[in-house]
Amino acid sequence: MSTKITPLSGFPELLPEQRVVEQDVVDLLRSTFELHGFAGIETRAVEPLEQLLTKGETSKEVYVLRRLQEQESGKDAGLGLHFDLTVPFARYVVENAGKLDFPFRRFQIQKVWRGERPQDGRYREFTQADIDVVGRDVLPVHHDVEVARVMLDALRRIEFLPGFRLQVNNRKVLEGYFRGLGLDDATTTLAMTAVDRLDKQPVEAVAAMLVEAGLDTELAHRCLAIAEICTPDSSFVERVRALGVEHPLLDEGLVELAAVVDGCASLVGPTVDVVADLKIARGLDYYTGTVFETRMRGHEALGSICSGGRYDALATDGRTTYPGVGISLGVSRVLVPLLNRGDLVADRKVPSAVLVAVTDEESRGRSDLVAASLRARGVPCEVAATAAKFGKQIRYAERRGIPYVWFEHDDEGTTTHQVKDIRSGEQHDADPDTWTPPAADLRPQVLIKEQPQ
Amino acid sequence: MSTKITPLSGFPELLPEQRVVEQDVVDLLRSTFELHGFAGIETRAVEPLEQLLTKGETSKEVYVLRRLQEQESGKDAGLGLHFDLTVPFARYVVENAGKLDFPFRRFQIQKVWRGERPQDGRYREFTQADIDVVGRDVLPVHHDVEVARVMLDALRRIEFLPGFRLQVNNRKVLEGYFRGLGLDDATTTLAMTAVDRLDKQPVEAVAAMLVEAGLDTELAHRCLAIAEICTPDSSFVERVRALGVEHPLLDEGLVELAAVVDGCASLVGPTVDVVADLKIARGLDYYTGTVFETRMRGHEALGSICSGGRYDALATDGRTTYPGVGISLGVSRVLVPLLNRGDLVADRKVPSAVLVAVTDEESRGRSDLVAASLRARGVPCEVAATAAKFGKQIRYAERRGIPYVWFEHDDEGTTTHQVKDIRSGEQHDADPDTWTPPAADLRPQVLIKEQPQ
Repeated sequence: MSTKITPLSGFPELLPEQRVVEQDVVDLLRSTFELHGFAGIETRAVEPLEQLLTKGETSKEVYVLRRLQEQESGKDAGLGLHFDLTVPFARYVVENAGKLDFPFRRFQIQKVWRGERPQDGRYREFTQADIDVVGRDVLPVHHDVEVARVMLDALRRIEFLPGFRLQVNNRKVLEGYFRGLGLDDATTTLAMTAVDRLDKQPVEAVAAMLVEAGLDTELAHRCLAIAEICTPDSSFVERVRALGVEHPLLDEGLVELAAVVDGCASLVGPTVDVVADLKIARGLDYYTGTVFETRMRGHEALGSICSGGRYDALATDGRTTYPGVGISLGVSRVLVPLLNRGDLVADRKVPSAVLVAVTDEESRGRSDLVAASLRARGVPCEVAATAAKFGKQIRYAERRGIPYVWFEHDDEGTTTHQVKDIRSGEQHDADPDTWTPPAADLRPQVLIKEQPQ
Repeated sequence: MSTKITPLSGFPELLPEQRVVEQDVVDLLRSTFELHGFAGIETRAVEPLEQLLTKGETSKEVYVLRRLQEQESGKDAGLGLHFDLTVPFARYVVENAGKLDFPFRRFQIQKVWRGERPQDGRYREFTQADIDVVGRDVLPVHHDVEVARVMLDALRRIEFLPGFRLQVNNRKVLEGYFRGLGLDDATTTLAMTAVDRLDKQPVEAVAAMLVEAGLDTELAHRCLAIAEICTPDSSFVERVRALGVEHPLLDEGLVELAAVVDGCASLVGPTVDVVADLKIARGLDYYTGTVFETRMRGHEALGSICSGGRYDALATDGRTTYPGVGISLGVSRVLVPLLNRGDLVADRKVPSAVLVAVTDEESRGRSDLVAASLRARGVPCEVAATAAKFGKQIRYAERRGIPYVWFEHDDEGTTTHQVKDIRSGEQHDADPDTWTPPAADLRPQVLIKEQPQ
C-alpha cells in the first residue's frame, strides 16, 4: 500500500460515527417506501454511452469507462457511469417490461457519478434515493399525488433533519399560460427557461432576455407575473385566473396542481410543508406535467435537494410508452454538509451496546460465551481486545461511546456477573441469559449539535 | 430514451422478486456484523490508479475512468473503479488513522468492478460483503478466530442457502514446512504457488512444475504431501508432525491454525462446517498467516465464494503499520446463479401485505385513510391503482403475491370494513385502526424451489 494518501475532492467519505447517520436516513427512507408498497431495485452502475448522451445537458459530466488492458488501443468500453437513477430506471422498465406488473412502483437508493467541478453540496460521487411510479400507456394523476405524499412521509420521519418545504408546479400551467398569451413554440420554450432562471437572476434581467427574443416589454412581464404566485393551498388557482389568461392546457394543469397540493395537505406538520410555487420549471426537458423541488430549511443555498416530476415519454420501446412520475432525494447533498459541519453525529462509533471485559487471556472463551448469550437476544456487543486492567477496558468503551461494560467476578469458585453503565457509574449483578439494556441503548442514536452561527 | 435495449453481459440485474432475496441476505449479514460490534462504512467507488496498480495481478482487470469532456485530450482522470474492498479499506485506515480507534472492526457491503471476461459466477459488477479487524502495530491472533466466527455466524443465519464449508489454512504452516524441507526464498514461493494450483491441476502436473524448477522428485512430492491433509478439528497437527519436518515458523503456524479451527467448533451445525485444509494458499500475495476459503455445498464449481486472511503489512503510512485480518463474501457470486436458475425467489413482488381496494375514484381518499392507518402500525400496503371491479382488483393483488385485500362496504350509510385473505378466500370484518396480519405475512418470504437436476 502506498505511503502517500491524498483525499479526492468531490468523493466524500464518512467516519463510522457519521456513517451511522447516513445509514439511519437510508433505513428510514427504505422502510417508508416499503410501507407504501414500493419495491426496491438496483440497476448496474453503467449504461451504454449512447443512452447517457441522449441527455445532452449532462453529457459533459459523464465518466466514461475503459478497461486498463484496452488503454493502449485507445478503445473505450462504450460504457459510462450513470449520473442519475431515472435514465437507468427507464431503461430497466423497457428491458423488463414483460416481467413487471404495471403500475410499477419502485424505490432505488444508489450512488451516482458526475464529472462536474466539486463544490459545497455538489459531489462527483453521491447517493440518491428515488421513488417512481410507471404505468403502461396511461398513468392517472393520483400517482403524482402519491409520490409527493410518500416522499413527504419519508422526510417527516427523519426527525433529526431541520425540515423541508416541497415546492410543486405543473408544466402544463406554465405552458398553457404562455400559449394563452399567444406565444408560439419557440417563445414558449424560451419563457419556460426564463421562469427557471428567476431563482438565480433578478426579474428585470430575465425580462430583458425575453424582450431580446422579440417579446414586447409588457408581454415579457406578463409571462413572468405567474411565477410570483406561491400559495400553501389551492388558492393559487384564483390568483392565476385573476391574470386573465385562458387556455385548455392551463385549465388541465391547474386541476392537476391543485390535486397534488390538496392531496399533500394532511401531511403538513412542524417539519414539512408544501406550496404551489409557480416559478418552479425544472431545467431538464423530459418533464411533461407535475414538477417538484424541495428546499431544506436553513440550507436554502444548497438549492433543491429533492426534485422530480411527471415524464410521459421518457421510457418507450417505440411501440409502447411507459409514462412515469418520480421524485429523487439527494441523500449526500442533504447529509454531507451537515455531517462535515458537525451538526449531526452518532452517540457511538460502534454498534456495540456492551463491552464484555476479559479478565485474562485464559478466560477469553468465557467472555465469548457471555457475548454469544447477549447476541442471541439481539444485543450488539464486543469482547475486549486485550486483558488489560479493568480501568483501561472501561476507557476503551468510553472512547467508542459503548454505554455498558460487562464484568465477570470469580469469588472463591463462585462466578458472578456484573454490568456497569459507564455513563452513570451504576453497577449491578446481571444474568447473561436474561439481561438486556433499555431499548434506547440498543442502537446508536443520532445527536443534533447546535453550532454557533 | 433509445428504443433498442441490449442487456450487458457481466452486469447482472435483478427483478423485484429476486432483489428481495438479495436484500434479505444483505440485511442478515449486516445485522450479524453489527451484533458482533463491527461498524459499517462505505468507501468511494474509485481509487487513484497508481494505488490499484500496485496489485499487479488484478491490474489488467481495472476499469479506468475518464471525464467525457476530457476524452478528446486523451487525458485520464487518474482514477479506476475499485476491484475489491480490501485495498480501499487499507487506504481508508491510513487516511483516517488519527480519527479511528484500534482495533478497528468494520464491515463493508458494496459493489466492486472487474473488467474480466464474464462467466458463470464471475461478473464485471458484483456485490461483496467484507469484515476486517485492523490493529495499530499489533493484532492478536484471536481476531483471526473472531472474523471466522462472525462470518460463520452470518452464513448460518441465511437459512435459505444450501450450506457452506469454511476451509482454513495458515501461510506460516506452508512456509515453515517448506523452509523445514530446506527450500530457499525462491523455491518456497514456487512451492506456495504449486500448492495453490492443486485445486485445478493433477498432483503429478504440479509436481512436474517443481521438478522443472530444480527440486528432485522426492522433494517435490514431500512439498505437496502436506496439502493432502484436511481435518475437521485440530488433529491436522499430528498429521503434519508425522511428516517429520521441523521449523519454528511451522510451529507458530500450527498453533494459530489450531486456534482458528478449535475456536470455530462451537458454530458448526447442519448448514456450516469448518476444516483445516492445508492445500489452501490463496493466490494474492499480501496474506501473511491465516487464509480462508469457503465452498457452497452443491455449488463447488463456483470456487471459493468467501475468502480472506491475515495481512500484516497491507496498510502502512511508512511509519506505522496496521496489521489486519478479514474475510470477504461474494454476495453476487453466491446469489446470482441461484436466482437465475430460479432456485430462490420471494413469495411476492412488492412489499405490500395488503391491497386496499377502491370502490370508485370519489372514495379514493377514504382508501388512502385506511392505508395510512395500516402503515401507522407498520403494515406495508398499497391502494388500488384504479376503481376496477373487485374481481379485477383481487387479480391485481394475486399477480403481485399480495396476500390480503381490504374492502369497504357502504350499507345504507353504515360503513363496514372487511379484509380477505386471497390465498384461503376467507373474509371477515376488520377495524383499520387495530387489524394486523400475522407476522409471517408482514414481509415477503424467500421460497426455496428444488429444481429437477
